Amino acid sequence: VISMKQIARLCGVSEAAVSYALRGKPKVNPRTRDRILAVAEKHHYRPNALVRSIQNKCSMTIGVAFNDFGNEYVGYILRGIMEVLHSRRYQVLIIHWETVAGEGPHILREMAERRVDGILMFPHEGTDPRTYLAEMRVFHAPMVLLDRKWPRCRYDMVGSDDRQGGFDLTAHLIALGHRKIANLHNTAQSRSEGFRLAMRKYGVPIREEWVVQSPFEADMCRWTRQWLSAADRPTAIMGFNDEAAMTIFSTAYDLGLRVPQDLSITGFGDLLVGRNLRPRLTTVRQNPMQIGRRAAQLLLQRIEQHPGRDTNMPDEPEHILLPTEMVVRETTAPIRKD
Amino acid sequence: VISMKQIARLCGVSEAAVSYALRGKPKVNPRTRDRILAVAEKHHYRPNALVRSIQNKCSMTIGVAFNDFGNEYVGYILRGIMEVLHSRRYQVLIIHWETVAGEGPHILREMAERRVDGILMFPHEGTDPRTYLAEMRVFHAPMVLLDRKWPRCRYDMVGSDDRQGGFDLTAHLIALGHRKIANLHNTAQSRSEGFRLAMRKYGVPIREEWVVQSPFEADMCRWTRQWLSAADRPTAIMGFNDEAAMTIFSTAYDLGLRVPQDLSITGFGDLLVGRNLRPRLTTVRQNPMQIGRRAAQLLLQRIEQHPGRDTNMPDEPEHILLPTEMVVRETTAPIRKD
Repeated sequence: VISMKQIARLCGVSEAAVSYALRGKPKVNPRTRDRILAVAEKHHYRPNALVRSIQNKCSMTIGVAFNDFGNEYVGYILRGIMEVLHSRRYQVLIIHWETVAGEGPHILREMAERRVDGILMFPHEGTDPRTYLAEMRVFHAPMVLLDRKWPRCRYDMVGSDDRQGGFDLTAHLIALGHRKIANLHNTAQSRSEGFRLAMRKYGVPIREEWVVQSPFEADMCRWTRQWLSAADRPTAIMGFNDEAAMTIFSTAYDLGLRVPQDLSITGFGDLLVGRNLRPRLTTVRQNPMQIGRRAAQLLLQRIEQHPGRDTNMPDEPEHILLPTEMVVRETTAPIRKD
Repeated sequence: VISMKQIARLCGVSEAAVSYALRGKPKVNPRTRDRILAVAEKHHYRPNALVRSIQNKCSMTIGVAFNDFGNEYVGYILRGIMEVLHSRRYQVLIIHWETVAGEGPHILREMAERRVDGILMFPHEGTDPRTYLAEMRVFHAPMVLLDRKWPRCRYDMVGSDDRQGGFDLTAHLIALGHRKIANLHNTAQSRSEGFRLAMRKYGVPIREEWVVQSPFEADMCRWTRQWLSAADRPTAIMGFNDEAAMTIFSTAYDLGLRVPQDLSITGFGDLLVGRNLRPRLTTVRQNPMQIGRRAAQLLLQRIEQHPGRDTNMPDEPEHILLPTEMVVRETTAPIRKD
């Protein structure tokens, strides 16, 4: 890229004159200005945003830390984030947990060196937040957590009301007569908390052997197969998202069980992955675009409030949970009276 | 963030001394150096990568232009990209086509101002490349295209051999006795080119009314419904990816047709979205992680060759197509002789 110095040499003027002309200041005479602008245009001059960043102490860059590349739910959150940040002229640096895992809190130093103005962070499933807490506390810029809390992190968080969603699905199954309900959950606890609340509220005993943390597909297959092969088996299995529901569905299919006649299944998310399941999937609709938008707006607000503060932890962290909506379709049915 | 100037003031030394100490140069006496390092540590000093970028004329940043947030195939390509770039200490700026669409080539100027060292670009479906070509030609840094060509763009491209994949699936259907084969394709033509090649090679007439460009779900449903409701209907429908195959499957299911007895279906990608389909999906496996890795490696190679070149177009653009592999499962079967 051509520099201001090079333009100055080509035009036979000072670098200051070039700088004035390019910024539209009136200190250069019109003919010189036009000559400078013509040379800049011809050589495709582009101002250096890095210099501007240093001068303004503001890089107009946000780091987004996430892991699930190719996950539809995360994708919608990112779209909401991009929409808001782009409208405010911020750019986004990717921090990919999977790639940087094992390097520990180092990645926050890299973001500090690049002077990001803030970070939006999906807490990493499987990373102990304690290893990051010390670095997060001394990080120079605000952070907002996405989708889930991280224990002991007193930061803002924007997610969806998954506990209510889990409660609604469970209450729906109980209303259909189910009492033997299994719950496959991931490391985020909210959905299974909702499950437990509903079970207790309606006096249905929780079978702990059917409540299992199992974020990976192979494990879900194994648990589902084991449960459904037993004489005393669940009449309903709740997946922690629509993909999990698909896995439960195909495992039941392979065992010769019909959905919903022999087994009711619920998902979570109402995403594309489950939309073509037949029978149609009973699930919970979230609002991921809106989660992304709210989180980005909150972060920008914190960035504006930040200068002069000693800490990047807000005095009163906000926990914003957007409402969910149960969508009853065909994979749940009244229990059969055999 | 504390600056070198502030550290200098706190330690009562010159800024140069701080700079030497922080960079481990021997020009400062050990006691002073230790005092400087202690102050830097205490105040969480972080070097400013923006300054380093300007000094080195190298921002260690790559722009990645893509659209399908939440698409599994794109997600794998990104993982391959991140793996290579991270190992070389590059960071990634997101350019989200959907967000910037309508602004035209402006986005390339933004990347030029931020002095990215190169761009990896998924050509945007639905954007006329001609509107970008002029800006691309004067862009200051190399670019590599991902997954598909853009007409008239003489840049490197890394993708998969989709034509061969489309050919293999079509030949497979023909071998099963199918002659009435419909093909739903997206704007990338390679897969349907493979379809046409196979049809011609084996002397099966192509019914043009059954070869339709239809990237969106609602249109795919409509076409599939229309074709399958007619008296003279296709016995096989090829989706351009696994999601499309899922849509074809659920539409056929809703019409009371059985797969594969009444209709054979093929996908493309062998992704999670299709893995839980029952019967199991016949599809083509690509190698998206490897596409991402190769593209990132090629871009870094071009960046190394770039300094001093007048153009960011390579003299001999490479078109790397990674091999595909057909995976025959249960959604394709011999045609019924009624």
